[in-house]
Amino acid sequence: MEKSDKKGIDIISIGDELLIGQVLNTNASWMAEALNKKALSVNRIIAISDTWQAITDALHDSMATAKLVLVTGGLGPTKDDLTKDTICDFFGSKLVLNQEVLDYVKDFFAKRGRELTESNKKQAMLPDNCEIVKNSQGTAPGMHFEKQGTHFVFMPGVPFEMKSIMTEWVIPYFSNLCKVKPSAQRTVLTSGMGESFLADKIADWENALPDNTSLAYLPSPGRVRLRITVKSEYQSQADSQLQKHIDDLQKIIPSLIYGYDDDLLEKTVGNMLKDAGKTISTAESCTGGMIAEKLTSIAGSSSYFKGSVVAYANEIKSNILGIDSNIIEEKGAVSYEVACAMATGVRKIMNTDIAVATTGIAGPTGGTVDKPVGTIWIAVADENGVSAKKYQFGNQRQRNINWSVQTALNSIRKALL
Amino acid sequence: MEKSDKKGIDIISIGDELLIGQVLNTNASWMAEALNKKALSVNRIIAISDTWQAITDALHDSMATAKLVLVTGGLGPTKDDLTKDTICDFFGSKLVLNQEVLDYVKDFFAKRGRELTESNKKQAMLPDNCEIVKNSQGTAPGMHFEKQGTHFVFMPGVPFEMKSIMTEWVIPYFSNLCKVKPSAQRTVLTSGMGESFLADKIADWENALPDNTSLAYLPSPGRVRLRITVKSEYQSQADSQLQKHIDDLQKIIPSLIYGYDDDLLEKTVGNMLKDAGKTISTAESCTGGMIAEKLTSIAGSSSYFKGSVVAYANEIKSNILGIDSNIIEEKGAVSYEVACAMATGVRKIMNTDIAVATTGIAGPTGGTVDKPVGTIWIAVADENGVSAKKYQFGNQRQRNINWSVQTALNSIRKALL
Repeated sequence: MEKSDKKGIDIISIGDELLIGQVLNTNASWMAEALNKKALSVNRIIAISDTWQAITDALHDSMATAKLVLVTGGLGPTKDDLTKDTICDFFGSKLVLNQEVLDYVKDFFAKRGRELTESNKKQAMLPDNCEIVKNSQGTAPGMHFEKQGTHFVFMPGVPFEMKSIMTEWVIPYFSNLCKVKPSAQRTVLTSGMGESFLADKIADWENALPDNTSLAYLPSPGRVRLRITVKSEYQSQADSQLQKHIDDLQKIIPSLIYGYDDDLLEKTVGNMLKDAGKTISTAESCTGGMIAEKLTSIAGSSSYFKGSVVAYANEIKSNILGIDSNIIEEKGAVSYEVACAMATGVRKIMNTDIAVATTGIAGPTGGTVDKPVGTIWIAVADENGVSAKKYQFGNQRQRNINWSVQTALNSIRKALL
Repeated sequence: MEKSDKKGIDIISIGDELLIGQVLNTNASWMAEALNKKALSVNRIIAISDTWQAITDALHDSMATAKLVLVTGGLGPTKDDLTKDTICDFFGSKLVLNQEVLDYVKDFFAKRGRELTESNKKQAMLPDNCEIVKNSQGTAPGMHFEKQGTHFVFMPGVPFEMKSIMTEWVIPYFSNLCKVKPSAQRTVLTSGMGESFLADKIADWENALPDNTSLAYLPSPGRVRLRITVKSEYQSQADSQLQKHIDDLQKIIPSLIYGYDDDLLEKTVGNMLKDAGKTISTAESCTGGMIAEKLTSIAGSSSYFKGSVVAYANEIKSNILGIDSNIIEEKGAVSYEVACAMATGVRKIMNTDIAVATTGIAGPTGGTVDKPVGTIWIAVADENGVSAKKYQFGNQRQRNINWSVQTALNSIRKALL
């Protein structure tokens, strides 16, 4: 019996480790992203405990509204999983030995030269009234049930096993089941202006957006992401309308936009350096190497990134970066002069086209009346000379570091524009 | 009317960005962890869309079973938030201007030398039938309602604002409301042995654990965390039993344990350096500055961390770290000899007691038959000399970097033991 008012997808993640905050629910996030890319709409993501009651309640709840319920967790070989017994109660199944799966499990272990344990054999005991979904990456297969017009797929919680079942079976199989109304979505990534100033600057554009278009502000230290969604009767209409909104926005804030969707500022900067055939180095005090770490997180960065000096102690600033210790003494390590000298110093010793430097008081201690915690100088040196700018962030150490890193990356971007 | 069968806490996270997998639900994870530490038990974590229907349904659902419902998101200054209107409908409230909050918002902006916008003023429009909860870090206050015996607290989604409301008000206020059965929990943090080898090594200890004790393995690159939970009728019993299990475990794997619960390896290493009165520097190739970044993420690290050279290009390895370029030519940049020379080089130029160096092929390209992607050398130099060890990690760039960083930090720890 198909119920037509059910729609969308619920993701249920089973695991006490989620409810005590020991691990982040990266599985659900990955699934949501993969589904969204295929225009499959997620209603809810629900993390629950690994108990009969919690699992049963969640399956009932989701069956009332969702067209498809994706469940992960509780199917591993270890002794803490109740999931299978709970599933049998919910769907009225009996566990029976599935010879095909047992053969697969035996073969899986044999190929890897590993011994088959009793707990591994248990994985071939499966409900007698479900469709078995192949797990090409592991030994616990997926299970597909249908009840009261709702589809249920149970998958193991091991990320790469879940991902392979999602990619190889779930997404192809269900991609016609939960199609949302044609929509186009893009996230415009900005850096260099805070949320409320940005909102004021683009207010006219935002107020002129039609009813079928929604806008969300997603701020984080040093960046504001603008997610624009257009729904329409036809895909081509949604696409072209979205493009027009973005073109209009681009005219208002051309230099603030560094990318779209999943683009990373460090990747944008890397591409700009590559295109310009330029090399870069960094001299970092308060950011402690994090700018270098971000730049080198991009595959292929060795073609433009040469190196970095993390100069935490003042003696490193003078001995390695060659800064006159009198300047450090007179102006203080957190100053315009030292930031500039760090940038020119590292640019010289690493022989790069461009260099960025940071010096500041990340906190929680070390602030003064003149230079409170959160005071950060960021300098950029290139063939045109050097300049530095002072920023006043907040009083939280990690946030100040993150903010400085994003701002420094954005300063490189602006210098390359 | 108090319903006695309601129990525990539901966390509701509002935001479309969660349902399309654009951001991880770090807020809910942080909240769950903070609540768990005070023995406040979380039933469910639910991520929902920013719509009237989804919010209303979720509030109804949670009111049926939970004693306390914590809601985050949808309270920012921009106009994408329906949350407040939905709240008013659910609790039968009217929005009224709260003069005290308006004064606070004005003052908040004045102190930071920023201009008050119209959208900021809107934050002082609040439901007339709730308790206003102070937000010491931002302008959107929290709201506390009670309905049908369930408490509801609404907080902004900005992490540090939510965290301050949780820490300053929610946790103290509710810490007596949802107490679970006496239990004691501790997570033992290990580094230096993979999960299955560790499981074999502690198998006798694990098999002897009584029924009221549970053990979970939580592996991540370079580390395995062991979470031990003991439930008992009396707190003192649970505590002492837990301590005995940990004491026994400690005897089996003394040198693998680097800390407990939230301890960070970089903090353990920092404390060991401080206690020994020793200084450290790093020379990083494949880790790109991340070891330095981890070490300097700890407040007070300037007392033992002097600096780092990120030597990505070979010319930096020779020009700044002083490595004979013939050695690089002959042995290759990823070699025992270069790893050792990097560690001794940086130790010398930064004049530190100890130094660690990394050189490897993070990937995705650059591997050869002899040195495939994932080949990493890690060297430690101190007053006793220098030595390096080769590791073979996987084929994923970021995972190789993370693995190298944890392993390097653990190598420092072992050198300091």
